[in-house]
Amino acid sequence: MIRSIINPDPLQWEKLCRRPLAVMKDTEPAVKNILSDVRRNGDKALRKLTKEFSGYDITVLKVSSEEIESATDKLTRDLKESIIQARGNIEKFHKAQVIKEEIIETAAGVQCWRKSVAIEKVGLYIPGGNAPLFSTVLMLGIPALIAGCREIVLCSPPDSNGNIHPAILFCAGILGIRSIYKVGGAQAIAAMAYGTESIPSVNKIFGPGNRYVTKAKELIQSEGIAIDMPAGPSEVLVIAGKNANPAFIAADLLSQAEHGPDSQVLLLTPEIKLLENVKTCIAEQLAEAPNRSVIKESLERSMLVLLGSIDECISFSNLYAPEHLIIVTDDPFTDAEKIINAGSVFLGNYSCESAGDYSSGTNHTLPTNGYAKSFSGLSVDSFVKKLTFQAVSAEGLKNIGEATETMAEAETLYAHKNAVTIRLKTLSYE
Amino acid sequence: MIRSIINPDPLQWEKLCRRPLAVMKDTEPAVKNILSDVRRNGDKALRKLTKEFSGYDITVLKVSSEEIESATDKLTRDLKESIIQARGNIEKFHKAQVIKEEIIETAAGVQCWRKSVAIEKVGLYIPGGNAPLFSTVLMLGIPALIAGCREIVLCSPPDSNGNIHPAILFCAGILGIRSIYKVGGAQAIAAMAYGTESIPSVNKIFGPGNRYVTKAKELIQSEGIAIDMPAGPSEVLVIAGKNANPAFIAADLLSQAEHGPDSQVLLLTPEIKLLENVKTCIAEQLAEAPNRSVIKESLERSMLVLLGSIDECISFSNLYAPEHLIIVTDDPFTDAEKIINAGSVFLGNYSCESAGDYSSGTNHTLPTNGYAKSFSGLSVDSFVKKLTFQAVSAEGLKNIGEATETMAEAETLYAHKNAVTIRLKTLSYE
Repeated sequence: MIRSIINPDPLQWEKLCRRPLAVMKDTEPAVKNILSDVRRNGDKALRKLTKEFSGYDITVLKVSSEEIESATDKLTRDLKESIIQARGNIEKFHKAQVIKEEIIETAAGVQCWRKSVAIEKVGLYIPGGNAPLFSTVLMLGIPALIAGCREIVLCSPPDSNGNIHPAILFCAGILGIRSIYKVGGAQAIAAMAYGTESIPSVNKIFGPGNRYVTKAKELIQSEGIAIDMPAGPSEVLVIAGKNANPAFIAADLLSQAEHGPDSQVLLLTPEIKLLENVKTCIAEQLAEAPNRSVIKESLERSMLVLLGSIDECISFSNLYAPEHLIIVTDDPFTDAEKIINAGSVFLGNYSCESAGDYSSGTNHTLPTNGYAKSFSGLSVDSFVKKLTFQAVSAEGLKNIGEATETMAEAETLYAHKNAVTIRLKTLSYE
Repeated sequence: MIRSIINPDPLQWEKLCRRPLAVMKDTEPAVKNILSDVRRNGDKALRKLTKEFSGYDITVLKVSSEEIESATDKLTRDLKESIIQARGNIEKFHKAQVIKEEIIETAAGVQCWRKSVAIEKVGLYIPGGNAPLFSTVLMLGIPALIAGCREIVLCSPPDSNGNIHPAILFCAGILGIRSIYKVGGAQAIAAMAYGTESIPSVNKIFGPGNRYVTKAKELIQSEGIAIDMPAGPSEVLVIAGKNANPAFIAADLLSQAEHGPDSQVLLLTPEIKLLENVKTCIAEQLAEAPNRSVIKESLERSMLVLLGSIDECISFSNLYAPEHLIIVTDDPFTDAEKIINAGSVFLGNYSCESAGDYSSGTNHTLPTNGYAKSFSGLSVDSFVKKLTFQAVSAEGLKNIGEATETMAEAETLYAHKNAVTIRLKTLSYE
């Protein structure tokens, strides 16, 4: 069951903020083999590995248009409407992230500007299995489309009958994503990194996955292929004041704990009564929870922490840098101003994490494991690069040329200096 | 001498775009040793390694206030004024990158927004040696300050007398950077990643360096510590039309070639006469160039390429994805619209790369080695992370709750569903 920690010494906070280390088998040798196999043998390697891992003897890796179209018949109307509503909200929020920047005249005759240009080819990885994460198709695909990526490749593992879950195909279908391939695991990452006969190589790879997928992304990153962000187990931290609803908090903690046995959930509060009530509600709700065996395991790695004040809770949270942060205090908006390290922040009694996971409009691909100290969650920014431009006129070069010559010379870069000198000389004759 | 390639078959373009591979000693074992030495032994390891590499037996790693203040006496007035002018332009351009985003109401009662928050602790690495890259202090330090980073740590190797070049100290001094440490190489990266008795650990590490520094950054990145971008040799590509000035182009190519023997420079043009004139100008200017031995080596790895049209030059350039791109055509502004892969773009006869390297205001830390296909150059964005926030009211949850429940259930995440259900139940009694 979840631990209670009462008024820990501030000197212990850093230790408490360390994520519990999962005992992980070293996946590197296996993943390195898969990467080099796919690099050398292309589709042949993908077919062999797919048979090995999913048991299905696949011939055509690409999902056909018919498969995509027929997916719609396999979903309930309710689910399709829900997906379409979520899509609308996600689009609305992400479209606002497209910003056109002004031209800046840094000196007379020197114009500088930035322009966002879509990354041409992107790869989206969607895990399969029993819980098909079709919502992630929306979370990766929508910003890719808004950014204007020319080629969007999606890989997801087939089941033992050679099918990708229809909800995944439906989400891809409504977004117009047509390059969908039946391949999962490290081999899917390898295919998108290096390209095969069937699967085009891409410039950047996005999406969650198991530890083989994570290791493959880490390895291809060190070869210079971009990835969305480093991965780690999912987590939520709740900061709650005296008027917070303990049953709601318990439900939020359980929802996060359900993600996997290595998830971590934390409550920080200055109210001992609330802490105890939350503990009681957890026990009650756990008894009813369908995924309770997973939840129980992650609760073992989790904590209810009593601290001196809401401000202490905020300091602790900033040290922890949670992926998801729920603030249910008397003034969550003011308290949210003090948050410096978090992935996504949920304010008030009705902002449950599930809302952000599916339908509020924010992205659910977020930095875990303390990476929120230096990484952002996914956004349209993740699918573009920003080019800088400058136009220096003859007048402009007269204004900044001498400074450039002086600095280049001081760095002993004489040819840098000369590129200015040779131009200024022609101008002095004008 | 530089090769001319006349009308290459488009099927050969991709091969021509491959960067020449430098024969590199495998630095990984040495760098791994340095990382674990610094991690274990802290300052003691830094002192030992500094003695080994710079020959100086250092006691105090931190640069004193007196050293920073006295740096100003060691520079000419000209250089100081040039630095201050460049700083003003860089500040002006980078300040415009600070953007406050609006709150988006994605559905009635569902407010979502993003906020940029500075990365708390950042580390800047500045190479030393004979050519002190003090301009990089401005390029890394200014956006860090504009972002609002609370702690800015700067490491640079001392010379054999135990000093950091005064121009580096002057630039840091005028920016108010006071945490400056005399340590270079992979050991500096290790110190900023892990922290030592003297040097604080940071959340993200920036800056150029030799192949040991590059390898150290790559290795600490795979441990989850953020770095600015992957590194590779510097490069420039010039697209020139018939009215371009061949002497200017030659000067730009030489200036880039001067960076190091592994730099690559390219001219793309549909004008054979221009190509030949540039070749002649290169020979002339090379004879006068102080750094000609380095330049000669990198010209060996470089190309003048004749193509069918300016549009073909643009396609080739987009495939190459140059760090620096100079466009000197009859209508550079229109042609620049077609550029999709480049770090920084220079338009017209007077926009030489040196201007952007020092004083136009744009950042000179840019993606090399084709990374411009997926990475941006450095900017204020590099020093912040963007947190998302959402406030869902009771009305909001009524609007998006059902869709959330349906999607969560379809992903078999029942506790996610319950976090909504438990809230909606209380609302139905109202």
